[in-house]
Amino acid sequence: MKPQPLEAYVEQMTLAEKIGQLLQLAVSFFEGAETEGEITGPMEVLGVSEENVRNTGSVLGLSGAQEAINIQQAHLRKNRLGIPLLIMADIIHGYKTIFPVPLAIGCSWDLKLAERSAEIAALEAAVSGVHVTFAPMADLVRDPRWGRVMESAGEDPFLNGEFARAFVRGFQGKDLQNDTSRVAACVKHFAAYGAAEGGRDYNTVDLSERQLREYYLPAYKAALDEGCEMVMASFNTVDGIPSTGNKRLLRRLLREEWGFGGVIISDWGAVKELIPHGAAADEKEAALRSIEAGIDIEMMTTCYMKHLAELAESGVIDEKLIDEAVLRILRLKQKLGLFDNPYRGADPAREAEIVFCGEHRAVSRELAAKSCVLLKNEGVLPLRRDQSIALIGPFAQSGDILGPWSWQGSTEAAVRLVDGIAAKTGMGRIAVAEGCGFEEASDRQLEAALRAAEGADVIVLALGESSEMSGEAGCRGDIRLPQAQLALIERLAELGKPMAAVLFNGRPLDLHGVADRAGAVLEAWFPGSEGGHAIADLLFGDAQPSGRLTMSFPYAAGQIPVYYNHFNTGRPKDAPDAQVRYVSQYLDMPNEPLYPFGYGLSYTSFAYGEPGLSSPEMTPDRPLTVKVKVANTGVAAAEETVQLYVRDLAGDVVRPVKELKDFRKILLQPGETREVAFELTEPQLRYHHADLTFASDAGDFLVYIGPNSRDAAGMRFSLRL
Amino acid sequence: MKPQPLEAYVEQMTLAEKIGQLLQLAVSFFEGAETEGEITGPMEVLGVSEENVRNTGSVLGLSGAQEAINIQQAHLRKNRLGIPLLIMADIIHGYKTIFPVPLAIGCSWDLKLAERSAEIAALEAAVSGVHVTFAPMADLVRDPRWGRVMESAGEDPFLNGEFARAFVRGFQGKDLQNDTSRVAACVKHFAAYGAAEGGRDYNTVDLSERQLREYYLPAYKAALDEGCEMVMASFNTVDGIPSTGNKRLLRRLLREEWGFGGVIISDWGAVKELIPHGAAADEKEAALRSIEAGIDIEMMTTCYMKHLAELAESGVIDEKLIDEAVLRILRLKQKLGLFDNPYRGADPAREAEIVFCGEHRAVSRELAAKSCVLLKNEGVLPLRRDQSIALIGPFAQSGDILGPWSWQGSTEAAVRLVDGIAAKTGMGRIAVAEGCGFEEASDRQLEAALRAAEGADVIVLALGESSEMSGEAGCRGDIRLPQAQLALIERLAELGKPMAAVLFNGRPLDLHGVADRAGAVLEAWFPGSEGGHAIADLLFGDAQPSGRLTMSFPYAAGQIPVYYNHFNTGRPKDAPDAQVRYVSQYLDMPNEPLYPFGYGLSYTSFAYGEPGLSSPEMTPDRPLTVKVKVANTGVAAAEETVQLYVRDLAGDVVRPVKELKDFRKILLQPGETREVAFELTEPQLRYHHADLTFASDAGDFLVYIGPNSRDAAGMRFSLRL
Repeated sequence: MKPQPLEAYVEQMTLAEKIGQLLQLAVSFFEGAETEGEITGPMEVLGVSEENVRNTGSVLGLSGAQEAINIQQAHLRKNRLGIPLLIMADIIHGYKTIFPVPLAIGCSWDLKLAERSAEIAALEAAVSGVHVTFAPMADLVRDPRWGRVMESAGEDPFLNGEFARAFVRGFQGKDLQNDTSRVAACVKHFAAYGAAEGGRDYNTVDLSERQLREYYLPAYKAALDEGCEMVMASFNTVDGIPSTGNKRLLRRLLREEWGFGGVIISDWGAVKELIPHGAAADEKEAALRSIEAGIDIEMMTTCYMKHLAELAESGVIDEKLIDEAVLRILRLKQKLGLFDNPYRGADPAREAEIVFCGEHRAVSRELAAKSCVLLKNEGVLPLRRDQSIALIGPFAQSGDILGPWSWQGSTEAAVRLVDGIAAKTGMGRIAVAEGCGFEEASDRQLEAALRAAEGADVIVLALGESSEMSGEAGCRGDIRLPQAQLALIERLAELGKPMAAVLFNGRPLDLHGVADRAGAVLEAWFPGSEGGHAIADLLFGDAQPSGRLTMSFPYAAGQIPVYYNHFNTGRPKDAPDAQVRYVSQYLDMPNEPLYPFGYGLSYTSFAYGEPGLSSPEMTPDRPLTVKVKVANTGVAAAEETVQLYVRDLAGDVVRPVKELKDFRKILLQPGETREVAFELTEPQLRYHHADLTFASDAGDFLVYIGPNSRDAAGMRFSLRL
Repeated sequence: MKPQPLEAYVEQMTLAEKIGQLLQLAVSFFEGAETEGEITGPMEVLGVSEENVRNTGSVLGLSGAQEAINIQQAHLRKNRLGIPLLIMADIIHGYKTIFPVPLAIGCSWDLKLAERSAEIAALEAAVSGVHVTFAPMADLVRDPRWGRVMESAGEDPFLNGEFARAFVRGFQGKDLQNDTSRVAACVKHFAAYGAAEGGRDYNTVDLSERQLREYYLPAYKAALDEGCEMVMASFNTVDGIPSTGNKRLLRRLLREEWGFGGVIISDWGAVKELIPHGAAADEKEAALRSIEAGIDIEMMTTCYMKHLAELAESGVIDEKLIDEAVLRILRLKQKLGLFDNPYRGADPAREAEIVFCGEHRAVSRELAAKSCVLLKNEGVLPLRRDQSIALIGPFAQSGDILGPWSWQGSTEAAVRLVDGIAAKTGMGRIAVAEGCGFEEASDRQLEAALRAAEGADVIVLALGESSEMSGEAGCRGDIRLPQAQLALIERLAELGKPMAAVLFNGRPLDLHGVADRAGAVLEAWFPGSEGGHAIADLLFGDAQPSGRLTMSFPYAAGQIPVYYNHFNTGRPKDAPDAQVRYVSQYLDMPNEPLYPFGYGLSYTSFAYGEPGLSSPEMTPDRPLTVKVKVANTGVAAAEETVQLYVRDLAGDVVRPVKELKDFRKILLQPGETREVAFELTEPQLRYHHADLTFASDAGDFLVYIGPNSRDAAGMRFSLRL
């Protein structure tokens, strides 16, 4: 194929060919596909003809290099102008080497390792023929009922933005065109998908423009600032209009205000979903609103395919809208080098070599260990190799530790907790019992568990949620462990033995019945392919727990939403002059979460010195230095995450009680002391004022430095403008 | 005092005297007060001098006609220009004759009786010296954790507006100046106080401008359209700024856009609370933001008193702002006739005669019976007079049935449930036991309850929340009955006897453990002074249950918020083509509440015929008639509330699955059939479009008619514009 300007392609294309570029279909629609579509009905359901498929611009879901090559080959043979397919897939936390779920990765506070995990995911995906991944997800999350919190880095806009950037760097590298081992990233779900009412997936989102801009948008913006190539529109409404048909959100804000020139894709079926939303009377109106809003690619429905031509020919829309969308898609194909090399990184030989290789798995193991958060430890952990262990619970021998969105991962190949422990101690001193299923229990299971526990020095409980209990559409109104598991732990607690609970789950849980019964609680999330090894490393002290929560663990579901960067209210409960009754509180539970943002324990202890400020006054030209000495006062070398928060005491609009502004992860040897210094600058104090201008306020602030959002010490300073 | 134009007063006033008019203090500050201030500290705490009190414009909280006369007399002696005090008080659901709490009154769907209750409250308050009541509350509520839902009519904007109007009519009558038996109304809490995050009182409110205007503002507006004289600003933030200092909300929207010229008052201490909110650095800034926003009267803090003079003299604010506020206050005093008769309705002799009189109590009894909602009845109710009854529970003999905001009501004088039942049957066949306290239980109590139940034909359970568990700052994260009461009902259920639960509470509850165990559940709310009689009337069938819920009873707290007029989402669970997993749902509980908006049972049964539409097409000039025949197919005469809902199938922005547009309460004799006809007009289909214009959409609609929001039958029609 000879190179030609992309505009020339557009000129040569028929209207049907152009509209074809805007369609994305699942792999099963294409010649060369290995799998019959499990999720897509027959082509007739969508009304897709052979010709439509021939014109189609992109495909999603794919199972390997050879299939990618076959499909692309067949497509190039049929497509009149020989325009290559863009191949996309959900590579969320690894391709075949599965890393911890993104919420767990967030808890590592390790941007380098997060980037490396995305790089490995890209390597494996690219060599398997994928061009674009539908990641990162940059949705801010405050409601643990929502199943997709596992896919977010957490509740903080700044930290989410940093992780979104790290993932984009990892996926895309520095030169997408020439580095065929990377994939383009697609940040999602634009916008505010994480604010679904009631924590119910796909549900209504209602936010003020201010909340949207101040808290929900920054992480998407960060991904785009890092060069993210694509954006996926979210399923939810934003200010009463589904994102997919939301002109103000996509065209005015994302395209015009932010200057995003890349491809915008709908989520699965979302264009047609404008109808049940009540934002379109029929498929034609759905197509109209979506193209006007700025959706370039319609995923898995055919409103564009069926109606765009008519809309253009009758003059309802300008054909230019279509041309622009086509150009954006072709430009991405060009950027990925597809016109020169339509197979790009797809390489069956190399695929066999690097996918799920030892090097990748070692990174997964390291990241998993750094993602686990030690929530409680009353001397139970680390375990000693001479202790006899009863490993009990539905996750003891389960490979269901990859978590949602790991479709290419193998649960059979995942290192189960029992394997990880056995690798440390051999099976000789381990007694294993399931105890109960994820949600059901039998007397026989319980009896076996009690027998296993009897002879043990220590009980390691492996509890949690099956991977189906979180993820897309995996929402729960009750965020406790399932009753069967709570009953198990209650019975085992009666034995009075030291007990460590290892939790596998995709959301912050209400840990009543766990944290009050187990002497130690290690939140392992869904740790990925090497989970068993990583957890065993931590359990035996071969690795040091260093994870810190990036999403609050509520005291109970009745507190939701609970997040650290809330406002103070006019009647804060903790004010020195607070009344007994007339303050903002619950009568029956605390306002505070059980475990706050930034929280996590180590096997060692850290002592924070008196923090210091370089000056009591900041100006735009004179940033502050905020310093603190941190000492490792325990016996193990370990990493501490020193966190910097700010509070604006009086603003044009009210400001959070604390906002994370920076953090530093440091490794300290036993007895070692290090000074950590942060520079704090005026731009870090800016926010959206009443009129939505982004600026800082002269006046008084508090700056906090400490190990988490709760226990940080505050110092006052003034900003002079 | 000789009449003079109000402007002349203002001209004669010193700046200190003007600012004094803007201050409201509790009654204990004033000479002539009978009570030392229980809620206010000594005057020094506020820094209030004798001179400040002399200049003060209004007073709140008051215990009778003589005290009102004494205070006014003393004040007129001291106030240089002889400007009478404005006397305000919280008369929320009755003065001494206590009516059901407003949420219960809402459930009556009886606007006439609601108006009458407010009229009686006004009569009793006015004769006791009150000029203004801090009611009605028109806050839309969707979160039963919030303690003040008991003070709202419920979750529907239209119905709340109708009740707000009824209360204003009842309080104010038609001629405030000459009818000294009425009081001015003050609608509150402007705005959206009911949307407190997490259902925690005083907490942050964040809404889109659209949600605010479409759902939260209409009921306040309805009260103002009915002539409500005053507005109270809410404690919460609206779009990031506390209402009290929110210029956009109070000055731009309320004053300029809506044209409200009356007095705006802060809530208790709210001006100074701008500081903890973080919207003002100090009291001076709090005063500045509040006066600029439009707060005329500062309640119980002294930021105006201390700082307005300086702000005016230094030119930071124009003194005109103060003059305007003073004029509004004087105008209200004039409207109430206070310049002619500063004692107004205060009359100790008549007070003794009419307050808590039999006539008033009879209305309370009638309204209480109409406010109760029969949620479940499997043949247990009505009781027969020949049955022996075990009356068990903490509310069996409790007078704590008035509910929050009944400070002048007497719990001793309240008709307890045991009294009401005894009045029907005598005490001969009743065994009474407490069973447990509100939150604690003893074995002795339980044993006594079991003994009482043993010999009975039927158990009547009197359960619920103490009045302190709801109301202001009465928020709960867990909305089940307290554990002690759930344990009691569990034990009693084991007896296998017919059991009717009567519930006393201020919020929708999670009725797990109650509705699944009792054969009948009667929601009695806090029924007021005549509660025992009203409930007994219903239990024995002397009155017919006719209440219908105006706030959904959630399945569990994990579902919150749950309300009937939600949006459909793009993936509704109940769509014909819905997938098993990928729909908007919880894995572990239904989306739907346990009992929906509009729901309630009767002792009879009603059959709805096929509904009919006058035309499949509506135009602005040609409204539709929607008709249905309703038959009483049971054995008792009873009232049915026929409800009319509309759904706009495709809008410029998404529209609720149902919206209440009208209702009709009809009384049907057994065997009687009546046709109910509603007129549905184009203005009823208007809503706030994407650009916030208020208009209707051409296109397809569904209109529903039925007994509640769940079971209504739909018909399609088109609107042509």
